[in-house]
Amino acid sequence: MTGDLARLSLNQETVRQLSLPALCEALTGLGVPGVGLWREPVQRYGPEKAARLVRDHGLTVTSLCRGGFFTAGDPAARRRALDDNRAAVDEAATVGTDTLVLVSGGLPEGSRDLAGARERVAEALAELGPYARERGVRLAVEPLHPMYASDRCVVSTLGQALALAERFPADEVGVVVDTYHLWWDERVPEQIARAGAAGRIAAFQVADWVTPLPEGVLLGRGQLGDGSVDLRAFRRAVDAAGYGGAVEVEIFNPALWERDGTEVARETAERYVRHVLG
Amino acid sequence: MTGDLARLSLNQETVRQLSLPALCEALTGLGVPGVGLWREPVQRYGPEKAARLVRDHGLTVTSLCRGGFFTAGDPAARRRALDDNRAAVDEAATVGTDTLVLVSGGLPEGSRDLAGARERVAEALAELGPYARERGVRLAVEPLHPMYASDRCVVSTLGQALALAERFPADEVGVVVDTYHLWWDERVPEQIARAGAAGRIAAFQVADWVTPLPEGVLLGRGQLGDGSVDLRAFRRAVDAAGYGGAVEVEIFNPALWERDGTEVARETAERYVRHVLG
Repeated sequence: MTGDLARLSLNQETVRQLSLPALCEALTGLGVPGVGLWREPVQRYGPEKAARLVRDHGLTVTSLCRGGFFTAGDPAARRRALDDNRAAVDEAATVGTDTLVLVSGGLPEGSRDLAGARERVAEALAELGPYARERGVRLAVEPLHPMYASDRCVVSTLGQALALAERFPADEVGVVVDTYHLWWDERVPEQIARAGAAGRIAAFQVADWVTPLPEGVLLGRGQLGDGSVDLRAFRRAVDAAGYGGAVEVEIFNPALWERDGTEVARETAERYVRHVLG
Repeated sequence: MTGDLARLSLNQETVRQLSLPALCEALTGLGVPGVGLWREPVQRYGPEKAARLVRDHGLTVTSLCRGGFFTAGDPAARRRALDDNRAAVDEAATVGTDTLVLVSGGLPEGSRDLAGARERVAEALAELGPYARERGVRLAVEPLHPMYASDRCVVSTLGQALALAERFPADEVGVVVDTYHLWWDERVPEQIARAGAAGRIAAFQVADWVTPLPEGVLLGRGQLGDGSVDLRAFRRAVDAAGYGGAVEVEIFNPALWERDGTEVARETAERYVRHVLG
């Protein structure tokens, strides 16, 4: 299976029951070459130590999740957010990834001004872009499903993410293509082509869409092949657009977290071969 | 308040705790001139009897909810759906409304073909349109929020609904503009203008967006003013597009259903004046 897994990366949150060392063991055991990391567990473990650990296992860190949350109206909160994002850039550079995933943030408390909030995101990108670039890190704007528009991310479509990214150089700001967030949108194939042609696809993440959605709609992502998304068509579209990078599986699902993490990693690799490749 | 309420309609499901006679009493008592009806309670009450009741109260039926669910792959299921929709058209004509709201249906079991499912919707519209038109009823395609794309409605944006409707004469097929489903989409103002110019806005429904969403995400709509939607901007946009019809409040929320229905109707009328008008 190893050749098939050459582009596979497993996002740490998919098997959050595994410690970072156990995750690295599981991935090398399976022949999965990539890992997507999250800030909180990396901070707990220590960024330098984490960097050494993944390097010693021969793993590539395909992304760090996540910075963002740029939409606060209050200047002090905005300053804190920018400081925190500079720290996230530093952590990305330390663990050796060139991709910092950004979740933009929702509407400020009491606000109904989506367009204004999207402008706050652009302002933050303008401020952070050069800082990140100097450290070899690209900001990757992730559009989240429109069901998160009020409370997590005012950037809801790949078109909106691209419109934001295109205000900046392609090596400063890219976009994340995540099947879970974008699968319903018929404009996505054309937008993937546009993003790929401009070298803007910073990351490709996969998860399946299953219903019913759980309360709060955060932890209901489906294992690959269990849901409604034509994952193979997405993968072919990003490939046809010239993207040759990692395919990162990112699933938030308590049913997966209750199982043996190494077994979930193995199942995910098999599902990847069956439903994403080919 | 009566003059302010000249365009207000209350959808029956907003106060489902009220019987049809109690609902009619409440609306006339408040000076609300319109009511949106649902098929199941109308069938239970009897369509002719319901028609007489609302007429005797001087109420206008602004829409009947709902037909649709057109996406079955199996021919027998498709035939049943079309039969049921012809019955829905008949019921709409009987209760005296010219607007039958259609929820298109989700992906067929095991399918990942969104584009194909949308074509099934177009085929059904082609078959039902003339039947409805002969009975003075227009089919109103309602785009539902993308979070319903797999299990309820493959038509997720006003742009998609318009693209479907525009294949047919404007007096056969229109669209529903519902703030709950569309508020996140920055293309909506322009699409409302396009829909209005073509005489395609068959209904304008309002509800607010509040989080966290409940499990299953069906019953989490917010009372007007409680959430993230700029309702007034929507109302101004449909007006500027030439729509002069009813503003129908349609909120599915168990917290409202637990309260006294007449009191909820009164509160809703007040919220309408405060957050939608002006």
